[in-house]
Parts: sequence; structure tokens; C-alpha cells
Amino acid sequence: MIPRTKGQVHIIGSGLLGTSIGLALKKLGVDVSLEDSSSATAKLAIDFGAGRALNESDSVEVVVVCVPPDAASTKVIEALQRFPQAAITDVASVKSGILNEVRQNAEESFRYVGSHPMAGREKGGALNGRPDLFVGRPWVIVPDEASETEVIKRIEALVLDLGATPVQMSAAEHDSAVALVSHTPQLLASLLAARLVDAKDTALGLAGAGLRDTTRIAASDPTLWLQIVSANSEQLIPILKEFELDLEKLIAALSTTSSAGSLSVIASALSEGNRGVSRIPGKHGGSSTEYSRLIVMIDDKPGELARLLTDIGDAGINLEDLSLDHATGALIGLVELAVLPDTQSRLVELLESKNWKLAG
Amino acid sequence: MIPRTKGQVHIIGSGLLGTSIGLALKKLGVDVSLEDSSSATAKLAIDFGAGRALNESDSVEVVVVCVPPDAASTKVIEALQRFPQAAITDVASVKSGILNEVRQNAEESFRYVGSHPMAGREKGGALNGRPDLFVGRPWVIVPDEASETEVIKRIEALVLDLGATPVQMSAAEHDSAVALVSHTPQLLASLLAARLVDAKDTALGLAGAGLRDTTRIAASDPTLWLQIVSANSEQLIPILKEFELDLEKLIAALSTTSSAGSLSVIASALSEGNRGVSRIPGKHGGSSTEYSRLIVMIDDKPGELARLLTDIGDAGINLEDLSLDHATGALIGLVELAVLPDTQSRLVELLESKNWKLAG
Repeated sequence: MIPRTKGQVHIIGSGLLGTSIGLALKKLGVDVSLEDSSSATAKLAIDFGAGRALNESDSVEVVVVCVPPDAASTKVIEALQRFPQAAITDVASVKSGILNEVRQNAEESFRYVGSHPMAGREKGGALNGRPDLFVGRPWVIVPDEASETEVIKRIEALVLDLGATPVQMSAAEHDSAVALVSHTPQLLASLLAARLVDAKDTALGLAGAGLRDTTRIAASDPTLWLQIVSANSEQLIPILKEFELDLEKLIAALSTTSSAGSLSVIASALSEGNRGVSRIPGKHGGSSTEYSRLIVMIDDKPGELARLLTDIGDAGINLEDLSLDHATGALIGLVELAVLPDTQSRLVELLESKNWKLAG
Repeated sequence: MIPRTKGQVHIIGSGLLGTSIGLALKKLGVDVSLEDSSSATAKLAIDFGAGRALNESDSVEVVVVCVPPDAASTKVIEALQRFPQAAITDVASVKSGILNEVRQNAEESFRYVGSHPMAGREKGGALNGRPDLFVGRPWVIVPDEASETEVIKRIEALVLDLGATPVQMSAAEHDSAVALVSHTPQLLASLLAARLVDAKDTALGLAGAGLRDTTRIAASDPTLWLQIVSANSEQLIPILKEFELDLEKLIAALSTTSSAGSLSVIASALSEGNRGVSRIPGKHGGSSTEYSRLIVMIDDKPGELARLLTDIGDAGINLEDLSLDHATGALIGLVELAVLPDTQSRLVELLESKNWKLAG
């Protein structure tokens, strides 16, 4: 693949995102330099293959600022001065504050357009960087009237080179969207998980997939998230307040379950939950309920899952999704297979003919 | 396998749990009869192979009441009269209320001991029944001073026959545990998902795994959950109130982020989340952080995943966990493999030698 990005890209901040961007661009043959406020971190990312050190004679065309949110605007403003030809973006999770500071305090700020890749992992740092981190993920670009078209085009080219899908919206629209789909779930997962700190072991022993899924992201980095949610508090507060109102109503209804009105409050909270979750797009942008699901029981030993999937692959059946649920303490695995509905009968027939243990 | 359960088992209520119990016992050669308040539902479960209709001349040894929580005590009390030799249990998700009603209103209630399998699915009904539903899952049994030892033994034998792990605790201890690890996550997931009902499509388009995981169980059946949370409101309310207090503090802190005290409130909520989530037992009862994880990028076409897993299986490497993350809109899949830490270097070596695209 010939990269759309022309010339040298300089990355400021070589954590998870900076390193991942460097690794991906280097694979395309782009000349990547990088720096970090910690020289040890920069050295690590360079050893890792994410880029080289910056030279005085370099002519940088694109700068990507990948520092924590509270340092982003300062680094962008510095970069506008340091690299006078470059198109500059940053990847911080909240966009309005940075945009305002850059527009108010920098000269030639038309060379800046903010952006935000909707990608990440619970674990940060250069060592967790991977060139495919952005593949197929949305990457929001937030132009305003001051952004130069040519600059937007260069950042879009970079995003496409990284395998991501550029999505344009205003900074305010972005911040409001991520407050709902990213920052609110993070805070609620943390608060829910916090309830487990003093839980009895016997209670935790009864935990199933529901608790695990609802609290997984509570394992995220507190330092990073403190900056994110503080920077986006204005968008977050109204959502959390509406949630709190709903919760208060629910608690009141649970306190008087003998009255019919209370039951309808609880029932409607549960039904609204059904409606809300059905709106989340699934794989390939489709609805998550489009697939037919089947469960197969396999022995929990090397090669069993492979044997199952070989049978499925040999029959030319494409799996839309797969999840593995090991039975606690047992040497048995349950494999849930999802296929397009019109493929289901072929899959059942195949599995039965190959003597796989199908549920039901 | 020779079943531990002796004699005929009768199942009252042939939904997901009743049908699954019937399917599993029939596989062991146990004589299973079943009934349902809807004769069509009973007929479906019988056609499905979960049991036969009850005959007048039958001599029932064990009765399992698998009806919705608000009908359970009535059905247990009836069953104690109808089946004078039988040991009787029910599988409702909340135990104290039923226990009290049975102890106060039934004769020979020493033949009853309540129980609760920690298993289920978002989708209910006989058609989703599967014989392996309980395999490796905890199944709580809640004896009290009135339960006969022989009755407890017969229910434990049934639980073992179903592949589950019997766990004894008091009804109160059970109800408090599930309020925390099951009912609270359910209600919070529903309330979070409810916030999405009026969300913009552009916002939902930015949703990632975090939102999907935190809201998955919001797809559960409102009618069933209305009964469960109403029956356990006494245990639920204090937990929800503590959550609400934490949420209120967090909202207040987010409203005044310029003060240092506020930041420490937010930071501590996030850190407590870290601590709480680390307490949830993972697969095989171990901690979820024990494994080494690797990510492999595969083409999203039939047979690719099988080819990968065949390579791994051929090398005798056992996967502890596997998850598949399809890139939105792209024909690429990311496979996250988890192995025991001392296996990681062998896995990396193998994948590299077979030319798999490893992240990083």
C-alpha cells in the first residue's frame, strides 16, 4: 500500500497511541520521528520500532500530539511554532477546551485541527502499542471555521493510512457524544466496581458474566480518566444527573413495591434499558441482534476449538462472532457461534454430522 | 455416568431452567416428567426432549419448581401436598421470601429446601434450554434448621447430576450476595442503556466495546427482572443508595473541578473501581489478570480462525481465553488470545514461525 501521507510525521508523546501510530506508519514506509517528555519512554518506543529521534535538519509535514489531555493544548501551541510547515493534530479524548485554547493563544492556528481516535485499551504505554489499534475504528476530526481545508485533508490522509474511518463533527458534538457513549459508562462501571471492594468472598464467588462485563472497564487508568472526565465535566454532568434522577425514582419504587404505580416505574426502567441497548450498532455497523446463535460444548484441551472451527471453515461457513465461556472449575468450554440467520440450518446440520455436542 | 438421582424427577414450569434441567437429566437416563401452567409450553418442552407428561400412577422422588419468582412459594406448597414422598426445591433468584412463606404455610415443609442455580441467559423459554446450562456454575442451596438432611442430600445429588457445584449458604446471605453481584449490575445496566434511547445516531456510531459490555445485560427480560428485583428490594436498596451517594459526590466534584479536593474525589472513585474489579474471580476461579494476552490480526473469511487455532492446537498450547473483535466495517478480525504466562514465549515463537500477523 502506498501511503497517502507525504513527508515526515513527527509524534509528540510515545504512549499507547503515539507508539501505535508510529508502528502503523513505519509499516507503510513513512518517515516517523518521535519525542516524549520522558527520554526513557521515547527510547523505548524507538527500540520498539515506532520511529526515530528528531534531527535538527528535519522538515516535518505532519505533527500528531499524543500527550495526556491536560498537556495537549500547550504541546499543540508549541508545535505550531516549532514546525512552521506542518499540519498539526492531537488525539485527546475531549476536544472543545483544547480547540479554544489553541485558537486564542497560537499564531497560525489554521494549521491545527483536533481529532480523536475511538480506539484504546485498558492497558496503556508504549509496550501495549500495536499497529492495528485503529483499524476499522472511527476517528473523529473536529474542524471549525478556522481550520484550513488543506490541513484537514492531510489529517484525513493520515487517519486513512492508519486504517481508521474519518468522521467529521464539531468539537461540541464530539464531546457530547463521548460523554454519553464512553465517559458515562466508564464512571458508572467504576462506581459499580467500587461497591465490590468490601464484598464478601462468598458473594464474589457467585459472580457471572453480567458482573464481569459491566465492570471490565473499571480496570482503566485512573490518572488518564481523571483528566478526561474533568475536561468534559460540562457535558457529563447533565447525563449523570438524569441517570441519578432515574436511579432515585427506581429506589423510591423499590421501597414501595406493594403499590402498582411502583411496579410500573421499575418495569419501565427495565424496558427502556431494552430499547436503549438495541440501538447500539454491532459488528460491521449492523444491529447486534441480527445473528443466529448456537452453543457448542467442547473439551477444554488443546486443539478442540481448532477442530471445531476447521469443520466450520471447511464447510465455507463464515462466523460473524464467537465467544468462549469456560465453565468455572470445569475442563469444559462453551463456544457460542453467531452466523447470519440464513446460514443457521447449514451450520446445525454440519455440527450434527460431525458429532459436535450442540446445546438443546 | 450413573446418575446420583434415584427415581422420578418432576419439573413444574418448563421455561429455560425447567427445560434445561429436564434435558440434562434425560441424558443421564433419569425418568423426568414435567408440567407447565401453559399446556402449549409443556408440550413444547416434551417435544424438545426435556421429559414426559405426569401420570397418575407416578411415584415422584424429587420435584423442582421452576416457575417465575412470584409463583414459586404457591407451587412449592402445592407440591408438598401433591407429592408426599418427594424432596422439593425451587430455583427462584430470591430465596428469603419463599422460604418464609413455605415454612409458615405448608405442612411437612421439612421436605423443602430452596436453591438457585447461578446460570441463565438473556433469552428465556424452552427453546433456549440446553442440557449444559449449569455445567461448572455455582448452584446455591439454602438450608435452614427446618430442612431435613436427607432432603438436602437429594437436592445436592440433583445439582451434581446437572454438572453444577453445590454451594451452601443461608437464604439471607444468598439474597444479599445476588443483590450485589447480579441484581445491582442488572439495574444499573438498564438505567445506563435507557440513556441511549434518545441518543443521536452519530453519537452511537462512536460506541465501542466499553458501552457494549456495560449494557449487554440490559437486553434481559423485564417481566422476570421486575419480579426478581421487587422480591429482593430490601437487600438492593442499601446498595443502590450507597451507589447513589457515591454518584452524588462524583457529580459535585465534577461541578467544581478547579478545586484540588474535587479532583481527589474523582481520582478515588476511579481507583476504588480498579480495586473492586480486581476482586472478581476469573475463569477457573482464578484472578482475571493471571493470563498473558496477545493479539493476532486475521482476515475475516471462513477458515482463517480455524487455521490459527489449528496451529496453536498442533503445538499443544492450551488457550485460557479467546475473544474476537471484528473491526467495524472492515474485513478484518482481531483475535485476542490468553495463555498462562509461562506459555507466552512459546506462543509468540509459534505464531511468528507460522507468519501470523502479531500486534506490535
